[in-house]
Amino acid sequence: MKIAVDAMGGDNAPEVVVQGAVRAASELGIHVILIGDKELIAGALGSQISSDHIAVHHCEEVVQMDESPLKAVRKKKDASIRVAFDLVKNGDANAVVSAGNSGATLAAGVLTLGRLKGVERPAIAGIFPGEKSHVVLIDMGANVDCRPAQLFQFGIMGHAFASSCMGMKNPKVGLLSIGEEDTKGNEQVRLTHELFEQSRLNFRGNVEGRDIFSGDVQIVVCDGFVGNVALKLVEGVSEAMTNMLKTELKRSFLGRAAFLFGRREIRRFKRELDYEEYGGAPLLGINGVGIVCHGGSSARAIRNAVKTAALYVNHRVVQKMVEELNTMVSNRTFG
Amino acid sequence: MKIAVDAMGGDNAPEVVVQGAVRAASELGIHVILIGDKELIAGALGSQISSDHIAVHHCEEVVQMDESPLKAVRKKKDASIRVAFDLVKNGDANAVVSAGNSGATLAAGVLTLGRLKGVERPAIAGIFPGEKSHVVLIDMGANVDCRPAQLFQFGIMGHAFASSCMGMKNPKVGLLSIGEEDTKGNEQVRLTHELFEQSRLNFRGNVEGRDIFSGDVQIVVCDGFVGNVALKLVEGVSEAMTNMLKTELKRSFLGRAAFLFGRREIRRFKRELDYEEYGGAPLLGINGVGIVCHGGSSARAIRNAVKTAALYVNHRVVQKMVEELNTMVSNRTFG
Repeated sequence: MKIAVDAMGGDNAPEVVVQGAVRAASELGIHVILIGDKELIAGALGSQISSDHIAVHHCEEVVQMDESPLKAVRKKKDASIRVAFDLVKNGDANAVVSAGNSGATLAAGVLTLGRLKGVERPAIAGIFPGEKSHVVLIDMGANVDCRPAQLFQFGIMGHAFASSCMGMKNPKVGLLSIGEEDTKGNEQVRLTHELFEQSRLNFRGNVEGRDIFSGDVQIVVCDGFVGNVALKLVEGVSEAMTNMLKTELKRSFLGRAAFLFGRREIRRFKRELDYEEYGGAPLLGINGVGIVCHGGSSARAIRNAVKTAALYVNHRVVQKMVEELNTMVSNRTFG
Repeated sequence: MKIAVDAMGGDNAPEVVVQGAVRAASELGIHVILIGDKELIAGALGSQISSDHIAVHHCEEVVQMDESPLKAVRKKKDASIRVAFDLVKNGDANAVVSAGNSGATLAAGVLTLGRLKGVERPAIAGIFPGEKSHVVLIDMGANVDCRPAQLFQFGIMGHAFASSCMGMKNPKVGLLSIGEEDTKGNEQVRLTHELFEQSRLNFRGNVEGRDIFSGDVQIVVCDGFVGNVALKLVEGVSEAMTNMLKTELKRSFLGRAAFLFGRREIRRFKRELDYEEYGGAPLLGINGVGIVCHGGSSARAIRNAVKTAALYVNHRVVQKMVEELNTMVSNRTFG
């Protein structure tokens, strides 16, 4: 098992990414290959280079955050994210982890490994801690302008992923909209609703933003623009809420006592909402394992993403998704 | 001062709406006119009808949640929401409060009172408690499919509202997207970005979901689909977070002690995030005061919405917005 880590991707690359990879290697015993400028990586590694769980694969180029993903990935053949997927293609690595430009990660994954049969546009799936069950939000930012047929496919991929990799039996699918009534939503949603209604998926109709946390449905489908706004909003709310809670508690003597007594629980509660714990989001629909991390990922987030990648490889996530997609096609779940 | 309350609008109408209006009348001394079926309202009022601050205005029809707003409002001339705005038009009431179909509230407002000069599509503005300052999110659900020029106008209305009614000097405007770089976002956002860049508004570029709570900008512009998803998501997160916090705290003896000591603060913290406290969202761009409430509003939420409506009337919000819009036009802030 070897995980290719895009050392050049992320707001704090390569330092923090390298630290995270080192932690995955030393704490979890996972082999990591750091892809990027060897001198920068060496600087970030410092004296930690001794471990035989860490390899460095040099490359010259990087896709920047403000570049057009597809153009950049096509042009820069030696960009870290492309080289990472090349290693997977050639059998030298089993999965890719990147905190860089997520559009570029998607583009490089598709270009290098190809798409699974039946998938037009791969997507990023986010896993949220719903109250009744985990919730898979798909797409979380890979595809900003989607046709209804593509949104429908996100539902199929979400179904395949949740069934095969999260142990969910016939998971309930909801379409993110602004009201539960069929007539509510924008044009895109109204047309997509019809496609889901005609399918054999366990479709429960439109759901609202709050359902990302209720767990009443296990899969929430939306386009990548809405999904990414939602993701960033959840981060913002949980941060703001924790700060507000601390401020409120510190106002009174009893509150300060409560904060003191409850600090372990408050910390655990914060962690529960923390995307760093979840270790990145899987890229679904490509022929391989790719994990997309938040640009601002900490070393712990990168460590956990490497762990998730290894878990998905061990659980043969891609093969299971292929099987599930095939079953759905032969069962005419598509329509 | 008289506030027309749509007694038939909302998930728990007329009972809860009537209770809220009664509380506004008895606790705040605001005159309310309850619009709707007089027998249903009488049933909900029970023995509370004695107050001279409460009047009932009978009408026969209601716009349902699943109706097409514009069609329903045009057809049903005696619908409670239309009658409410008619009262304002005729000078028999000063403002409208409704927890019913928000699209219908918008349509009835436009149809009856008309739009302000320079406004193509009125919008609903949500006010969030940002960490550094309050944040106005516009549009929160009135317009689901918007052209870039319409999104730009939301920014202008947000500016006019925040400057004239919230005491903000030259408020910073951000465009909700999925990355701060100019190239990020869907097509709609990229085109809107150009319009803002050419304007004289205090435009700070793209912002992300988290900025609805940071207060780094005071006005966040998005279409009504994204805005409504965001609103419902915030509700869901704050509810889920409060529940998760309680669960965590109750796991240990110290945690339970913390919960006991801190319960007043935890309650205050919950209230801070509670939309019921904010008393509905103003409908901006119509020639009058209209307050849109959440369909699931409690009596307290309705009470606070009536209070907000009275406040806006007292503060001459509409006149101030007209002045601000005129100033912007003559100063060529538009482009």
